Amino acid sequence: MKPTEPSQFATPEAAEAAFYAAFEQADAMAMMQVWDAAADITCIHPMGRAVSGLAEVSRGWREIFASELRLRFTREPVQMVQSADLAVSVLYEHIQVAGEAKPRPPMLATNVYRRTAQGWRLVLHHASPAVVEIAEGSTAIAALH
Amino acid sequence: MKPTEPSQFATPEAAEAAFYAAFEQADAMAMMQVWDAAADITCIHPMGRAVSGLAEVSRGWREIFASELRLRFTREPVQMVQSADLAVSVLYEHIQVAGEAKPRPPMLATNVYRRTAQGWRLVLHHASPAVVEIAEGSTAIAALH
Repeated sequence: MKPTEPSQFATPEAAEAAFYAAFEQADAMAMMQVWDAAADITCIHPMGRAVSGLAEVSRGWREIFASELRLRFTREPVQMVQSADLAVSVLYEHIQVAGEAKPRPPMLATNVYRRTAQGWRLVLHHASPAVVEIAEGSTAIAALH
Repeated sequence: MKPTEPSQFATPEAAEAAFYAAFEQADAMAMMQVWDAAADITCIHPMGRAVSGLAEVSRGWREIFASELRLRFTREPVQMVQSADLAVSVLYEHIQVAGEAKPRPPMLATNVYRRTAQGWRLVLHHASPAVVEIAEGSTAIAALH
């Protein structure tokens, strides 16, 4: 980036748009430019462990992008909470896989952005299945918590 | 609360301790005192939908607490990101159900706290299963995202 160039993402919304664009394009370099280059970043893929730090988070995305599945996201906002230096976005991810007739079951994602000298950057992505089809209380997990 | 009493939770950590204490005690009133009494709060129980607003969030907890399961939480911190007015805590919830020999599979939770006139209050709880036992890439979900 040239020194005269403005910060990459002027708002959390701009960073979020770049995150899902990189995801759709399966572009690991663009994806990692959305993340804060910091030790305290954390990424939780659905049903996975929490991975932390730039190297591990980057490795996780490269593994996902190696799968050859091409995804298209429709975002349904749930919550946006923002302060001067942190912003929290909660949304449904409606995912269409290229070549599949029907969309996948939706995911719920919490994305946290931090204002840095390089603009707003992602510090947490927590995604999990939102199994909206199941009857209330029909699973051990739902009953437990 | 008497007017001379200090804010209920002076730190995000104090609010988080109160959250898990209320959860263990299945105390809906204590639980809702941890939440910000605001329209923009959101709660995501594992494999559930996102519920928003005080009435819906409160109803969800009362349903869970009606299950008679008594839980004991051991918290394993993953990430804490804090600014002046917002704090994000990510942790593993290791859950022991009273009367069961073995702990349940761990959950991952993202808890977001906001500084209010009444101290730090919860504005987001996003919990999801962390299925650490599965082999990498062994499920459709893991391969997808």
